Amino acid sequence: MKNTASASISKFSSIFDQNYDSLFRDYFQFLRFPSISADSSYRDGIEGCASWLEGYLSEAGLSVERWETPRSPTIFASWHGAGDDRPTVLFYNHYDVQPVDPIEQWVSPPFEPTVRDGKVYARGAQDNKGQCFHIISAVKHYLQEHGRLPVNVKLLIEGDEEIGCAGLSQIIHQKTDRLKADYVFIVDVELLDAATPTITLGLRGLLGMTVDFTCSNIDLHSGRHGGIIYNPNRALVEVLGRCYDREGRVTIPGFYDDVVDPSPEELNEIELNFDSEKYRKVFDAAATGGERNYPVLQRCWYRPSLEINGVSGGYSGEGIKTVIPARAKAKISARTVPNQDPQKLFEAIKKYFLANAPEGVTVKVTQEGGVGGAVRTSPLAAITRASAQAFSEVMEAKTKFVLDGATIAVTAALVTASGGELAMIGYGLPEDKIHAPNESFSIERLRKGFVTTARLMEILGGVG
Amino acid sequence: MKNTASASISKFSSIFDQNYDSLFRDYFQFLRFPSISADSSYRDGIEGCASWLEGYLSEAGLSVERWETPRSPTIFASWHGAGDDRPTVLFYNHYDVQPVDPIEQWVSPPFEPTVRDGKVYARGAQDNKGQCFHIISAVKHYLQEHGRLPVNVKLLIEGDEEIGCAGLSQIIHQKTDRLKADYVFIVDVELLDAATPTITLGLRGLLGMTVDFTCSNIDLHSGRHGGIIYNPNRALVEVLGRCYDREGRVTIPGFYDDVVDPSPEELNEIELNFDSEKYRKVFDAAATGGERNYPVLQRCWYRPSLEINGVSGGYSGEGIKTVIPARAKAKISARTVPNQDPQKLFEAIKKYFLANAPEGVTVKVTQEGGVGGAVRTSPLAAITRASAQAFSEVMEAKTKFVLDGATIAVTAALVTASGGELAMIGYGLPEDKIHAPNESFSIERLRKGFVTTARLMEILGGVG
Repeated sequence: MKNTASASISKFSSIFDQNYDSLFRDYFQFLRFPSISADSSYRDGIEGCASWLEGYLSEAGLSVERWETPRSPTIFASWHGAGDDRPTVLFYNHYDVQPVDPIEQWVSPPFEPTVRDGKVYARGAQDNKGQCFHIISAVKHYLQEHGRLPVNVKLLIEGDEEIGCAGLSQIIHQKTDRLKADYVFIVDVELLDAATPTITLGLRGLLGMTVDFTCSNIDLHSGRHGGIIYNPNRALVEVLGRCYDREGRVTIPGFYDDVVDPSPEELNEIELNFDSEKYRKVFDAAATGGERNYPVLQRCWYRPSLEINGVSGGYSGEGIKTVIPARAKAKISARTVPNQDPQKLFEAIKKYFLANAPEGVTVKVTQEGGVGGAVRTSPLAAITRASAQAFSEVMEAKTKFVLDGATIAVTAALVTASGGELAMIGYGLPEDKIHAPNESFSIERLRKGFVTTARLMEILGGVG
Repeated sequence: MKNTASASISKFSSIFDQNYDSLFRDYFQFLRFPSISADSSYRDGIEGCASWLEGYLSEAGLSVERWETPRSPTIFASWHGAGDDRPTVLFYNHYDVQPVDPIEQWVSPPFEPTVRDGKVYARGAQDNKGQCFHIISAVKHYLQEHGRLPVNVKLLIEGDEEIGCAGLSQIIHQKTDRLKADYVFIVDVELLDAATPTITLGLRGLLGMTVDFTCSNIDLHSGRHGGIIYNPNRALVEVLGRCYDREGRVTIPGFYDDVVDPSPEELNEIELNFDSEKYRKVFDAAATGGERNYPVLQRCWYRPSLEINGVSGGYSGEGIKTVIPARAKAKISARTVPNQDPQKLFEAIKKYFLANAPEGVTVKVTQEGGVGGAVRTSPLAAITRASAQAFSEVMEAKTKFVLDGATIAVTAALVTASGGELAMIGYGLPEDKIHAPNESFSIERLRKGFVTTARLMEILGGVG
């Protein structure tokens, strides 16, 4: 077993080296498309990038489909030659990228990939074109080398991830026949650090809303009306201020309904050590939010949270303006965990806000955006064990398991559509500066991703 | 007495009619200066208006001084011919006006006074050039008619009232010798309604501050950090939300220190009826703010209040942005009542906010703007009785006494500098739309103001 793994890894590393020039020619072509989904003036970048992917994957020997959506096209490619007795593996990536502002802070232009000190600098170098490229190039070269893959493969590459999966989310329910798979990999996350193989076993869901507090039809003078009218800013701070108790627990009835805490055995497998010194150093912040009676990372990974993303009402400029505004507004989001029904949770939060409206204050609660469901995989699942084996073999270290408190909007729907086990993998690192100027991805991690993809397919296919 | 009053009023009304053309020529000249204090590009309007006042008051026979300040000049004019055995009366007005935006909503240009339906339309028509003009023109014509005034008169006309008395406040302490007076009238307020003589017997003071809540050095992702960091928006709503109890009482220790509630006898003289139906109709608002155990107007006139003039933190645009902001901010002001020390109150509020900062949250409290002190006059004071008599005689109705919850920044300092009794008078009405497009003042109320000024001087001087 060990020897088979070593030989396979060594061989696939050589393939990377032998094809270095063509790999980087293709990777750089992929990076040159300004495929910014948030800005409609970049439609040519999106279209060009989607077409390039179609060509690349067809040439690689996959069957390619272009799925139109209300936003950007999704590219779906598949290879079914492994036979019905082999599992089907679905890899999810995205080809759209974040905007590039502030453009003046880029050392080299964002859409002209440039190598410095072993790193490729470009928008999307890591997120997610780099992480996509090590998947698709590994599939291509594995097929080229062996004439077949160890498993059946489906590649789902969408063009709207950076805008909440706005396109794919709309059509995914019509594609369940295409998306059936035994294993689903979201390839869009990070390692704990450069030396630690890391598998992400869960994401939280997301539920957003706007809460409006209205007390009059016009802004009023705070001298003439102060002590008479109910100031909507006061209503806002009172109603929202009572949402948390002193221990950081959310007081809204039903907020923790249906939450299932993990077993001690499960927690034991998860890397829950939180480095509060590092947190203070990096963010100048203390880990004093959330439920104080839970360990820090457990609060973020296994518990729902309620955050006030924005408050606004009245005057916030220089000095003082003696106004009582007509209305005030809060933007609120909840992160949910598996087994919670986000829609039921929304109704509970809405009911709480309406029931707590002070006399003379009109409260309105509006749901914002789609609901992203939470997902979680057991550290003991087959997909987890296979992923850990592949990462550990390639990185030569023990794999650690983490979760992520964030949401990838389409994940829960993808799990449902595929009917498969899920894991989130990736070779990202915080130093890659995704979403910021001078995004980069190291050539070394691109190589490791390439080799890991090949090895992961072998393990899932029962090869060594 | 009654006959003297009637004769005097009748005579002074005739003077208004006989001099109608020249009065309106002068009033319109006064109105044509775009004396906007808030916008430094209108310095010519300020300067021109100040010079015009100097000329007008000199011609009227007063001794005129121009006081330079760090902002606009203050015009001071006096006449001391009544003798030391007669009281000295000081009238306060201002010649600066509010900006005119939105200019497109004006029916006629704001600095081209236009008469429609018995009303003069122009910026400043009422606030405060109209109310100033009925004072200065009455003084001029009384002197012209009688060769003397019944009292010694001082006119203090500033050019920065609309920007918090920013100029006069800086120099008033150097002018105490000039400002000595027995009676001080702030001529810048309104009647209850067109048929009701009204004297305003108090103003509240003002104290402003900014409260900053900081939790990190950068905006953070609410999925990755939700449940870990203490969201500054949460800190803001919790700390401010606890400032009020369920009855609307401010819970900050010391907030009500030194507040002296009025005696039942004093309250009995004051028009405390609050029309909640009208309030609902005009503002679509309920009188549910402030201390619920006090009658509505008593809360606004006799009790200090704490208002949150602005809250801001994080995202407030369309949809949802899953951010935990680095900081959040509140703009807060307190209205104070006489006998409270605003500086002591500021320290009490600051201490409360700092003491209640949650762990991991840095709270900073910064005082904003100058402190405006509260002022109050007894309904039984001589100035109150004289003002009520003059207004009742001219308007032929019983005078009602009110207070105003707002602040005129220089008033408390003016009371101190003059050493005199204070009352706030004026012929304004809400329908005049001061500070808004199409400000107006009725010719009828200009005439009544003119006559009342003359009659008020007579009463204070012991004539009839």
